[in-house]
Amino acid sequence: MAGSTFGTLFRLTTFGESHGKAIGGVIDGVPSNIVIDLELVQKELDRRKPGQSAIVTQRKESDTVAFFSGIFEGKTTGTPIGFMIPNEDQHSRDYIEIQEAYRPSHADYTYDQKYGIRDHRGGGRSSARETACRVVAGAIAKQVLNKLGVEFSTYVDQVGSIRLTDTSFFLPEAIESNPVRCPDEQIAKQMEALIREVRSEGDTIGGCVRCMIINVPTGIGEPVFDKLHADLGKAMLSINAVKGVEFGSGFSSVAMRGSEHNDIFEEDGSTRTNNSGGIQGGISNGMPVELRVAFKPVATIMTDQETIKQSGEKTTLKGKGRHDACVVPRAVPIVEAMAAMVILDHYLRNKAVSL
Amino acid sequence: MAGSTFGTLFRLTTFGESHGKAIGGVIDGVPSNIVIDLELVQKELDRRKPGQSAIVTQRKESDTVAFFSGIFEGKTTGTPIGFMIPNEDQHSRDYIEIQEAYRPSHADYTYDQKYGIRDHRGGGRSSARETACRVVAGAIAKQVLNKLGVEFSTYVDQVGSIRLTDTSFFLPEAIESNPVRCPDEQIAKQMEALIREVRSEGDTIGGCVRCMIINVPTGIGEPVFDKLHADLGKAMLSINAVKGVEFGSGFSSVAMRGSEHNDIFEEDGSTRTNNSGGIQGGISNGMPVELRVAFKPVATIMTDQETIKQSGEKTTLKGKGRHDACVVPRAVPIVEAMAAMVILDHYLRNKAVSL
Amino acid sequence: MAGSTFGTLFRLTTFGESHGKAIGGVIDGVPSNIVIDLELVQKELDRRKPGQSAIVTQRKESDTVAFFSGIFEGKTTGTPIGFMIPNEDQHSRDYIEIQEAYRPSHADYTYDQKYGIRDHRGGGRSSARETACRVVAGAIAKQVLNKLGVEFSTYVDQVGSIRLTDTSFFLPEAIESNPVRCPDEQIAKQMEALIREVRSEGDTIGGCVRCMIINVPTGIGEPVFDKLHADLGKAMLSINAVKGVEFGSGFSSVAMRGSEHNDIFEEDGSTRTNNSGGIQGGISNGMPVELRVAFKPVATIMTDQETIKQSGEKTTLKGKGRHDACVVPRAVPIVEAMAAMVILDHYLRNKAVSL
Amino acid sequence: MAGSTFGTLFRLTTFGESHGKAIGGVIDGVPSNIVIDLELVQKELDRRKPGQSAIVTQRKESDTVAFFSGIFEGKTTGTPIGFMIPNEDQHSRDYIEIQEAYRPSHADYTYDQKYGIRDHRGGGRSSARETACRVVAGAIAKQVLNKLGVEFSTYVDQVGSIRLTDTSFFLPEAIESNPVRCPDEQIAKQMEALIREVRSEGDTIGGCVRCMIINVPTGIGEPVFDKLHADLGKAMLSINAVKGVEFGSGFSSVAMRGSEHNDIFEEDGSTRTNNSGGIQGGISNGMPVELRVAFKPVATIMTDQETIKQSGEKTTLKGKGRHDACVVPRAVPIVEAMAAMVILDHYLRNKAVSL
Repeated sequence: MAGSTFGTLFRLTTFGESHGKAIGGVIDGVPSNIVIDLELVQKELDRRKPGQSAIVTQRKESDTVAFFSGIFEGKTTGTPIGFMIPNEDQHSRDYIEIQEAYRPSHADYTYDQKYGIRDHRGGGRSSARETACRVVAGAIAKQVLNKLGVEFSTYVDQVGSIRLTDTSFFLPEAIESNPVRCPDEQIAKQMEALIREVRSEGDTIGGCVRCMIINVPTGIGEPVFDKLHADLGKAMLSINAVKGVEFGSGFSSVAMRGSEHNDIFEEDGSTRTNNSGGIQGGISNGMPVELRVAFKPVATIMTDQETIKQSGEKTTLKGKGRHDACVVPRAVPIVEAMAAMVILDHYLRNKAVSL
Repeated sequence: MAGSTFGTLFRLTTFGESHGKAIGGVIDGVPSNIVIDLELVQKELDRRKPGQSAIVTQRKESDTVAFFSGIFEGKTTGTPIGFMIPNEDQHSRDYIEIQEAYRPSHADYTYDQKYGIRDHRGGGRSSARETACRVVAGAIAKQVLNKLGVEFSTYVDQVGSIRLTDTSFFLPEAIESNPVRCPDEQIAKQMEALIREVRSEGDTIGGCVRCMIINVPTGIGEPVFDKLHADLGKAMLSINAVKGVEFGSGFSSVAMRGSEHNDIFEEDGSTRTNNSGGIQGGISNGMPVELRVAFKPVATIMTDQETIKQSGEKTTLKGKGRHDACVVPRAVPIVEAMAAMVILDHYLRNKAVSL
Repeated sequence: MAGSTFGTLFRLTTFGESHGKAIGGVIDGVPSNIVIDLELVQKELDRRKPGQSAIVTQRKESDTVAFFSGIFEGKTTGTPIGFMIPNEDQHSRDYIEIQEAYRPSHADYTYDQKYGIRDHRGGGRSSARETACRVVAGAIAKQVLNKLGVEFSTYVDQVGSIRLTDTSFFLPEAIESNPVRCPDEQIAKQMEALIREVRSEGDTIGGCVRCMIINVPTGIGEPVFDKLHADLGKAMLSINAVKGVEFGSGFSSVAMRGSEHNDIFEEDGSTRTNNSGGIQGGISNGMPVELRVAFKPVATIMTDQETIKQSGEKTTLKGKGRHDACVVPRAVPIVEAMAAMVILDHYLRNKAVSL
Repeated sequence: MAGSTFGTLFRLTTFGESHGKAIGGVIDGVPSNIVIDLELVQKELDRRKPGQSAIVTQRKESDTVAFFSGIFEGKTTGTPIGFMIPNEDQHSRDYIEIQEAYRPSHADYTYDQKYGIRDHRGGGRSSARETACRVVAGAIAKQVLNKLGVEFSTYVDQVGSIRLTDTSFFLPEAIESNPVRCPDEQIAKQMEALIREVRSEGDTIGGCVRCMIINVPTGIGEPVFDKLHADLGKAMLSINAVKGVEFGSGFSSVAMRGSEHNDIFEEDGSTRTNNSGGIQGGISNGMPVELRVAFKPVATIMTDQETIKQSGEKTTLKGKGRHDACVVPRAVPIVEAMAAMVILDHYLRNKAVSL
């Protein structure tokens, strides 16, 4: 299992390097007879694409997705959906220097160690460009989930040390009201200022994305190994630059007492608090599923860095290209896409629990 | 995929409820011709078992594992290893009360929602007792990995707000020198005092386990979805009571600059810092793999709690039984076992990268 | 994937060598809340066990299965069912001779080539004893399928050149009315006579098992790779001694014209003929699923055979032990069990086709 | 698992309907650093394509494959190979009639029963056009296997009742010397005459493809469920129109005695006969792997057939379009491709058997 397939019943398989002819994939296991709005899929892609605002990378990629199968007269047929996003604007010349030098904290070195060969242009398969395919599949999963009433609120809740503490379910309009995708106007401005400052120094900064999912049916997630949050966690950790993930009370639960942390039931089965993050024993309890994802600062910086060549010889690498100073604004649709795929997959898996 | 199988080439499948006749499992994909010391497996189990020290639950379970296949004249044959741990000391009467009342922040409610039936005795399948099977499989994986030089240092680095900041590779003797399994004697004493205090109040407290793995071969882990840390993360999040996981710099990376976070290469391919936690682009780089796991406070407390019955009617539940005031000392071998299984599985998967 | 797990949503994982302490397994993905009659499971095992009649091997194995989990108060809980069948009557001394000599057309040589180590006693993992675990899982699958109205008619339709041409759906009473498990009394007698004759010569003979499954819901089976008959075919070919499998018209279709072979629809969607064997495009069409499985003659014969030792040196092997002269009477419940597991697995998979 | 993925470590995932924009797929798990000749891949496709000779369908499809990733400077990089074959010559008007009438022995009815929606044009996903993707992946697998010395001889050995009994390893030149792909010139002529005759009557005829694989390394295939021939069998049965598969002595073994069937070892581990078909206990023994696949007569005939509409109403369907009178000449590269994928997948899986 070479690792390019994700999911059990709803599955995405992807291909593509950042500077090959195209990236794309196959979405298998989409339930049949679902009306899909392909323009909405493109809109999700546009939320991820470079050049969409002043604070993200200014690479110009239109990221236009084409579909080849699995949708007939506007509806899913239950057969696999093949799609492709052509690569454009390939400044391969930007990457000549890194043909032999390893960029620090990138995957250049590890790919060479693993495969003994590497498409060095733009990170090849390790490029975050690959996540565009996840957004396509996630956008379709979201449309399927919407029929069940499932809704997502995904946004930036931290950049550097600036953090939003309000954990409400924010609506898309609030999230999309600014380029940072932080739904609090004041905090968003501070974050934007920080990103601009960091960028002006040729540097980068980390951040967090928070995802809240409401109306998740109760009972989804499998006990033991395939707990709902275990699969959501894997999904998040598979996104480039992610260093951690937490659910509900997360790392803050460590300092809490059980008497304080326990979620007391109301008569309708809901709970007074939601420290469990909507999941108990790996299975959804009907409360909002809540998770938070930590992204490290982007490794590509615009200042000189020491490094080594393939030979081991020391060299200096000068940052070039057009990169993000902070990845989280563009990571919002990726986190949401991965979450949607996991929720839909587990929803389908759960159907097998009864005859 | 009902979720009771873990791993791709090295795989564990488990069965068993806490108060059934036995728990057990099948370990498949063990390379052949490896000498296995079954007493070492039992010793790992003893590190997880109840009643081993004054600060853990005083339930008396001998947790003796029996093996049925896959080992012939002391060596693995490459065929599956079947094993069983009989259940003992089943105070099922302790659980009569919870037959109809849902324990807050347990899986009683979600199991009922999912399956429409529930073995209520001691949490059934959702009981942490199931993790004993993971320790068995992990102990075998560790013995296989030892032939490759891979070594683990897993210990408690936080209880409540008391935290060990030294991130050295601690040796087993230091870790096992006290019942908390924190390798710093002074901090361990503080942690132990806190656990005793919390327990005397009938309450519980959270904690963190840190795991450091050295001599992991470079090149293991698959790009894109099955990144090494994504699979490690899933492994950790599948352990009962885990609310978060982080790798290398983890959540602290969020506030860092790229210039500060990037791991600069030395001429031998090692890196000056290890913010990457031994993994870049999802693939091991030869530096220590480092991760940290957050455990919430145990949900079973000894004080009265409001809750509801299956009917939705309100009721009060009085904590009973013999439970841990803090789960992390006993979680250490579980974290290590899950990590070992993932590392071995990916080591074997990586063999397919070349002809 | 070391190959000891079968199925996607309904899955069996097995362990065990013929002369270890026990064989057993884990059945995962059983829908919850299904009443299971464990005595019926044992009865299925009894149909497979040695010593049940004069024409099968006279080894005495009681093959008593014990269950450890997943069934609570007579009903499935949706959690894995762990089970074990202790090994008895282990005449390991019978196998001392084959410790170093390879039995022709057995798996001794290939196991040595693959693993470099081999539990030589009784064939180890390659022994047909392992199929007892399949019968256990299949018996549970059959009970689940019975709730849906699915019924099986599985019987011997050929021994040597003696063949039953009547392809009716025979009832259990007819099938079990004689030790050959051929539902036609006259033909059964001829088959029995042939088996006795072959056995008296120390030789063995091949045979065929036919399986017919009625009331299979329409729409199960997945297009392309996981066609219903592709998975049934794999299931059959995974049984020891099977050399071929065919569906509906099978190999006889080769000499037919399309105009003769096509199954013409009736107004209710049924078809006039059933050359398709109940499956079109890999998906069940509601007609009986029909398949036929070819078993080679048992490799263990009671006459002297030339062979080689591990060293390559030539030697002569004298047949010993207590073996079947013809395997098909005991293979009937195994074929049925494998078919039941595939049908149930695909039934559950098909639930994901709609929201 | 919606069934569009095949293989464990070497895996193909496909998409596409016969009359959509394109078909294609993703090949994952190709070992790195292997030189691939893309023209050879196209040549394999040309062996499958319509219109290649007078005795196959005269549809004009150029079937030109384009590759998008996974190959860099002529070598595999270990990352997934994405590819696409645009659909051309789509006479969708040919299919207006079958929009509401079910073609006998096609998958029209079962797709409707399963999905409740159907791309009726040309069979949609159930069209044999999908097998072009298998040929692409198989051609790459074959090139990888060639580095190990593995060679294939795949040819037509039966059309109707005309059968080639010579079971030699025939070379490509002999196989490709005539449009039937039967390596015996005289028999090929008889087969061709029969196909022409059947076609002139608007009818179709079945046939068999035989595949022989030499230099398969010993020890590949997994015991129990994933036996090498079980996976090969599934691969074959997943090809459109296949009704049966047999290995080595196959169905003829049924009438044989053990004393006659057993393959006696020579001193070098080879066997005097090869009734086992190169596989014992599910594991390759170094002898040629031999299998035979039965194809039913093509269901599309040029004469009137009774059938029903979606409503159940009776109707008459007149055969139209351009179809094959016998599918086996074009099936040869498909059988070979599927066999190659299975052999390579099991070769890679077997690497995990030792550390």
